[in-house]
Amino acid sequence: MNRRIRITVWNEFRHERDVKHPSRAVYPDGVHAVIAKGLAAEPDFEVRTATLDEPEHGLSKETLEATDVLTWWGHGAHDEVKDEIVERVQQRIVLGGMGLIVLHSGHVSKIFRKLMGTTCKLRWREMGEKERIWVVEPNHPISAGLPPHFEIPHTETYGERFDIPAPDALVFLSWFQGGDVFRSGCCFNRGIGRIFYFRPGHETFPIYFQPEVQRVLANACRWAAPSGCPPTQFGHVPTPLEKC
Amino acid sequence: MNRRIRITVWNEFRHERDVKHPSRAVYPDGVHAVIAKGLAAEPDFEVRTATLDEPEHGLSKETLEATDVLTWWGHGAHDEVKDEIVERVQQRIVLGGMGLIVLHSGHVSKIFRKLMGTTCKLRWREMGEKERIWVVEPNHPISAGLPPHFEIPHTETYGERFDIPAPDALVFLSWFQGGDVFRSGCCFNRGIGRIFYFRPGHETFPIYFQPEVQRVLANACRWAAPSGCPPTQFGHVPTPLEKC
Amino acid sequence: MNRRIRITVWNEFRHERDVKHPSRAVYPDGVHAVIAKGLAAEPDFEVRTATLDEPEHGLSKETLEATDVLTWWGHGAHDEVKDEIVERVQQRIVLGGMGLIVLHSGHVSKIFRKLMGTTCKLRWREMGEKERIWVVEPNHPISAGLPPHFEIPHTETYGERFDIPAPDALVFLSWFQGGDVFRSGCCFNRGIGRIFYFRPGHETFPIYFQPEVQRVLANACRWAAPSGCPPTQFGHVPTPLEKC
Amino acid sequence: MNRRIRITVWNEFRHERDVKHPSRAVYPDGVHAVIAKGLAAEPDFEVRTATLDEPEHGLSKETLEATDVLTWWGHGAHDEVKDEIVERVQQRIVLGGMGLIVLHSGHVSKIFRKLMGTTCKLRWREMGEKERIWVVEPNHPISAGLPPHFEIPHTETYGERFDIPAPDALVFLSWFQGGDVFRSGCCFNRGIGRIFYFRPGHETFPIYFQPEVQRVLANACRWAAPSGCPPTQFGHVPTPLEKC
Repeated sequence: MNRRIRITVWNEFRHERDVKHPSRAVYPDGVHAVIAKGLAAEPDFEVRTATLDEPEHGLSKETLEATDVLTWWGHGAHDEVKDEIVERVQQRIVLGGMGLIVLHSGHVSKIFRKLMGTTCKLRWREMGEKERIWVVEPNHPISAGLPPHFEIPHTETYGERFDIPAPDALVFLSWFQGGDVFRSGCCFNRGIGRIFYFRPGHETFPIYFQPEVQRVLANACRWAAPSGCPPTQFGHVPTPLEKC
Repeated sequence: MNRRIRITVWNEFRHERDVKHPSRAVYPDGVHAVIAKGLAAEPDFEVRTATLDEPEHGLSKETLEATDVLTWWGHGAHDEVKDEIVERVQQRIVLGGMGLIVLHSGHVSKIFRKLMGTTCKLRWREMGEKERIWVVEPNHPISAGLPPHFEIPHTETYGERFDIPAPDALVFLSWFQGGDVFRSGCCFNRGIGRIFYFRPGHETFPIYFQPEVQRVLANACRWAAPSGCPPTQFGHVPTPLEKC
Repeated sequence: MNRRIRITVWNEFRHERDVKHPSRAVYPDGVHAVIAKGLAAEPDFEVRTATLDEPEHGLSKETLEATDVLTWWGHGAHDEVKDEIVERVQQRIVLGGMGLIVLHSGHVSKIFRKLMGTTCKLRWREMGEKERIWVVEPNHPISAGLPPHFEIPHTETYGERFDIPAPDALVFLSWFQGGDVFRSGCCFNRGIGRIFYFRPGHETFPIYFQPEVQRVLANACRWAAPSGCPPTQFGHVPTPLEKC
Repeated sequence: MNRRIRITVWNEFRHERDVKHPSRAVYPDGVHAVIAKGLAAEPDFEVRTATLDEPEHGLSKETLEATDVLTWWGHGAHDEVKDEIVERVQQRIVLGGMGLIVLHSGHVSKIFRKLMGTTCKLRWREMGEKERIWVVEPNHPISAGLPPHFEIPHTETYGERFDIPAPDALVFLSWFQGGDVFRSGCCFNRGIGRIFYFRPGHETFPIYFQPEVQRVLANACRWAAPSGCPPTQFGHVPTPLEKC
């Protein structure tokens, strides 16, 4: 693919519009604005944003058709995402090859649960603990350019058991100060689409400003971009290839 | 588990009640009756049946709670299975550890698609071709007691691409006379439940009378029976294990 | 398999015979003696031991033929294990279905590296840190009966990157006080044999006396016991099954 | 990687130098000459060849250091490849990230068996049967540009059980006229290197002249090229990252 990768950065964008919410101090223009700015610095990316309260959640058929990779941040309003739109996003991934990057609390978004088939639940705690992310697969495209480990100074903690299918590749593991571990970078192939779950990214910590995190997101978008394979032909094939 | 494995054999049971349908000649009492009879011959199994047109499709909460392994055969009426019951079955698998054996055209059942997160589509043709099933993993519990390969004399053909996530174990591959191949025995772990997809089993061929097929089903039920692990605790864990 | 599982507990047994070595205070009769005693408490196990300085390292053809599962502890004398014996053990696993449980510093044993095809190297430190082992797959036979996590009060630390092929199942993850994480319970299928790598178990800490560790070892031996499938037939098959 | 991918095409090159061997009619300059010519047509590749009877089998340290991807064809003289060179190739893959493409009868080469840890045996027959190769993963880089299936008109047959570890990705499945199936395109990650096994390619059939086969080889070389990650640091790390 020689043209630029077209990325749509999706955000629930509710916390940051609530004047009383602590996320406003960190992400006054929304989590998506910071993610999009980081990605837009890459010369091979073309970035737009979409949010829950736009018509069709900003995810019209036209927008999805013109999206190579969708990043997803949601937290408190997962249930407000319409089933019809979730279905549309799933189809675009599985049948059309769009990539999906699911971030942090997006683990219980409708779209991630629909693609995984499990509850995607986990254990959590919000104490601003330190997280250290270890690279388990150093030659995976998503860990390119990263050191063997890097730290998130303060974060919400997620701990195992994380109820997901065994990932097709496990790229990162997290260590937490409070004694927990987590599979924090997980790749999945579903249909002809690729999905990456990345754990870091709480709305009250400046995690999406960190260069290592921005690097992971950029790597993940390149990895998840469509391979360009045509839609698969399914269904009735009346004539056998060999004489029966 | 020292008590017997409680199996519920589910069938859509529509074709076989239609006096004009060719399945009546092969399965006059329904596909489920033959599957259940085969399984009931195993001393460690306790078998019941359930069908689409029973109240709650025969899958009440009580029945599911008392089911260790559910086998699923459906074909023409997938859409008539109520979403609420599909959700209930999924929960019982993922959170409760019930096993699920999905048979043949059950590949596009609501429950299988919900668990896989993909379309589960494939290519197909109905010509009564010969199928030869090859054991790819001879030490897997589901291939126990089988020869290196066995034949289905006449069957409906399924061919790749089969749109599923890469299985956690690939036990069988099928060869078809007409030139196709298929991943015909696929294991998946989802939550604390185990799922096995087994391709053979069309309603107009006496496939479920074959000893090798009956052997596979019995092996699969034993493999998919709950391990007995307690429900996983998810959610808020306010106190860290280590001092932060 | 209704007869008892025949386990051979192998130990390098050098440190514990050195009067100046601190391991003598913890394992005066050898690490193998404690492992064997723990396993022998299981009614379905039949346990013997073997050590490096016995003839053929205690692993004659007859012994291996009469072994269902071999557990392996080595540390400082990996290079003294004869290639011929390593080859024999590999054949018994891959072609004969014997299980292998590789313990702690056995990660760079000849047999484990031969089965993995990689260096099996890792990062390590010996400070007596606390380790917390998390169950990632609660319904796996090897985690049966375990709590969601358990602790090793003092241990040698191993950290990622652990240079192994992606395991066929990842059962445990370790958290270390000093900031590291590790894939500490890894299942592999090789040929018709099953291999489990379990990280805990340094020679100067009483780790093999811990009930949780003993439980893991017993579970692993049951999981790795041969399925009973006959040897696979390879080689020339001159006559095709179908007319060409 | 903006520079060209440096490929070394290795061949045993014995059959084709034997004036009585039928391979001379098809590959008069050796199998490697045809493979190399096909790859050299790609503008981003730089191709050289190496053969068994050259000093160090043509695989000096300098050559391997200057090789991004090595393709391996051997058949009758696997045992003549020196263990020291096999060890060197393994190290360059696992620690240095060189890619390896193993072709056809290379399945029992020393290097493939060393990387897999199993016998890599299979069932075979030489009757010039038709083979049909099915794409199982249409969005994998190695199947880019291929149709859903393609045929090899005449080939040596390989059949399951193929004694390999479960591949990290299964890209192709083969159907054979005589009734067999085979996992004919298998990806493995070992250390920081990538390995692809591709089944087609007998020395007496013009398989390496086929455009689809050449396409697979070119795709595989791009997929297996080193990611550029630095060598992993293993070993003693005396100072913990966190206070203990």
